[in-house]
Amino acid sequence: MTIHVPDRKMIEAHSLAQLFIEARTHNVFRDKPVSDELLQKAIELAKMGPTSANQSPMRVLFVRSQAAKERLRPALAPGNLDKTMAAPIVAITAYDEHFYEHLPYLFPHADAKPWFASDPVKAARAAFQNGTLQVAYLIVALRAVGLDTGPMTGFDNAKVDAEFFREGHVKSNVLINIGYGDAEKLFPRSPRFSFDQMAKII
Amino acid sequence: MTIHVPDRKMIEAHSLAQLFIEARTHNVFRDKPVSDELLQKAIELAKMGPTSANQSPMRVLFVRSQAAKERLRPALAPGNLDKTMAAPIVAITAYDEHFYEHLPYLFPHADAKPWFASDPVKAARAAFQNGTLQVAYLIVALRAVGLDTGPMTGFDNAKVDAEFFREGHVKSNVLINIGYGDAEKLFPRSPRFSFDQMAKII
Repeated sequence: MTIHVPDRKMIEAHSLAQLFIEARTHNVFRDKPVSDELLQKAIELAKMGPTSANQSPMRVLFVRSQAAKERLRPALAPGNLDKTMAAPIVAITAYDEHFYEHLPYLFPHADAKPWFASDPVKAARAAFQNGTLQVAYLIVALRAVGLDTGPMTGFDNAKVDAEFFREGHVKSNVLINIGYGDAEKLFPRSPRFSFDQMAKII
Repeated sequence: MTIHVPDRKMIEAHSLAQLFIEARTHNVFRDKPVSDELLQKAIELAKMGPTSANQSPMRVLFVRSQAAKERLRPALAPGNLDKTMAAPIVAITAYDEHFYEHLPYLFPHADAKPWFASDPVKAARAAFQNGTLQVAYLIVALRAVGLDTGPMTGFDNAKVDAEFFREGHVKSNVLINIGYGDAEKLFPRSPRFSFDQMAKII
């Protein structure tokens, strides 16, 4: 694989629209199945996004079966319940606070494992920070492969962790409903800040 | 603006390469200036990415001037010092823990401000989580407009906050060096997990 991309330019307007400008958070999905291959492709893209010292702490459970969804049901906020149970796929994204166990493989340039193994508070923050960067890469990657997403933080993290991550060092982060959205069921888009309200060049 | 994108498909391979597959974290940038217009475009894209209840807590200072860089210098980790001082632009990304003050504008569907105004711990976590999602959107958006990035967490957050965010409720998150990378100065790419090492379909 080449790592040199000469003369990079802005990607095409239709791709910017699909990824950001016209992409929306969906609550209702059409009755069209999501292939395992597209989920795998989205992970293959998202995992290439940068994390500090290549920590790569994100873990993902793609919930497809009714049985697994029933395990998730008690943790869902009332307002998220019906739409989530009806979504073709629900991704439970999480982060491994023991990510440092894998740094000898992931970050061979330096002996980085002790930077975190000796400091659980630092490790937990790094896992949350970098695992959350990876959630966003995954949302963009799912859109890039042609899927729609409905990310949510309204759920009981402790219940999800007890049910799905009993090892104790993996913590749930964001749920993402995934499918092919029904654009007719969208609400109007919420406002955004102007550049000057959120950024400054100094 | 239309919100309906019919027949979305996977975006083109060259765009997937530019955004994820071949994109790299750069330490050395070519002597080519970065226009304000591209930084503005990247923000216009990144701000459209989803956050919980449209919280949009990310704030960004794009450091271009030598004077502003000198203010940043004392906070940089030794290993990040020279490359950061030499980068055309350094983005200081941050999150506003008082984001809820803006929810009446950003999230008009509900009276969401009290959900956070009454709970500083919950507000701080939400600001960090959603502000970090937005950092990743910004990294992908910078790549989408044709720029290269070098994100870093190795710096003294308290020093940056004291120097740049004296209001006290805005906290620094990730620094991002920005420019046109010198591909010949790249190290080999670090390994990534396989799908099965980080994800599962259940």
